[in-house]
Amino acid sequence: MKRLLAIFIAMIALNAISAQEMQRTYTPHYYDRCKLFDNEAPITSTDIVMLGNSLTENGKDWNKRLGTNNIRNRGIIGDEAMGVYDRLHQILPGKPKKIFLMIGVNDVSHDLTADSVVCLIGQLVGKIQKESPTTTLYLQSLLPINENKSKYKTMIGKTLLIPQINDKLQVLCYDKGITFINLFPLFTEGNTYVLREELTRDGLHIIDEGYDIWSKGLAEYID
Amino acid sequence: MKRLLAIFIAMIALNAISAQEMQRTYTPHYYDRCKLFDNEAPITSTDIVMLGNSLTENGKDWNKRLGTNNIRNRGIIGDEAMGVYDRLHQILPGKPKKIFLMIGVNDVSHDLTADSVVCLIGQLVGKIQKESPTTTLYLQSLLPINENKSKYKTMIGKTLLIPQINDKLQVLCYDKGITFINLFPLFTEGNTYVLREELTRDGLHIIDEGYDIWSKGLAEYID
Repeated sequence: MKRLLAIFIAMIALNAISAQEMQRTYTPHYYDRCKLFDNEAPITSTDIVMLGNSLTENGKDWNKRLGTNNIRNRGIIGDEAMGVYDRLHQILPGKPKKIFLMIGVNDVSHDLTADSVVCLIGQLVGKIQKESPTTTLYLQSLLPINENKSKYKTMIGKTLLIPQINDKLQVLCYDKGITFINLFPLFTEGNTYVLREELTRDGLHIIDEGYDIWSKGLAEYID
Repeated sequence: MKRLLAIFIAMIALNAISAQEMQRTYTPHYYDRCKLFDNEAPITSTDIVMLGNSLTENGKDWNKRLGTNNIRNRGIIGDEAMGVYDRLHQILPGKPKKIFLMIGVNDVSHDLTADSVVCLIGQLVGKIQKESPTTTLYLQSLLPINENKSKYKTMIGKTLLIPQINDKLQVLCYDKGITFINLFPLFTEGNTYVLREELTRDGLHIIDEGYDIWSKGLAEYID
């Protein structure tokens, strides 16, 4: 009984201390963007949310790209799977009509395995489905990278990992009953896994022509 | 239409190539043990399975430790969360009475984040629950490590990660409705997160006295 009490006290102590350490932290830009979103009109059930990292944020005015007026750009440069997870409370209470999610390439840059990236995205998908079951969720594939043009050391050697993750994301979508949008082959060079050189300046991000391709790839999913 | 066809062909090609690369591979010892398990009498619904990595395997005769005759040692030195996942077909068809799972420290040594480790263990737990709902599953905490005595470079700087993972595992167990067995505080030095020096030779594995502590910690869950 004494031992049990000691264990109980140790558990409380552990929880108290490590709760602080456990907290995930992100970039200053992440918190700036979250503050900005907080000050915007809240998301409603007629909205379409573009959710993701720099690729989404840099798309800027998605309404202009897709000829709509109800798209909200909720991309954050540098964001990762758990980063999106931790800001779903800004999105799901509004029960948006649709969410287009593209996330994971920054997790890849942090050296996560394919299994880990897909597992974290699976958690994210699960939370969206649970907390906003009326939302139609689309999971977009990761886009290819181009190591020859890469300014990012953390992406070196990762070219093949991207399609491996995409294959697993496709299985995840099947399991979860959501639509997988495989944008990957729209961006590759010939029969390779490499991002077409002319679509990128830094091997990771895409220029305007890339956004045209992306937008066309999404058109059929937008009313 | 032509573009759609091109995309379709590209998708097939991608799937064919990356299916090979996707396959997870493990150590020779992993496959040796799996072969051994295949040649043993199959697991039945009266069996209790000790499932994990070297910590479990090195416990050797768990029946002797726990005064039972129905425990099967299914530990594999070096095993990780997805390694266990990939050999569940050797365990779940027998619908064992109980499974005691301890896994994750090798994932930690492979530099996975706490979120990733817990996410992968969550997949594992989900698969066990789905495929053998009659099994009572117990998730055991990770044990502490001792960096001062560590022979493993990959464990340096990971002492605090272990209780962080354990906290998240406790939440996971709550979510999944299974019992979490927090062995961690039974092994630590005073008010620290450090494995007691006298219980280990290499900072990671435990000696016989450690197995006595572990066995006592499990006793209440064994009939």
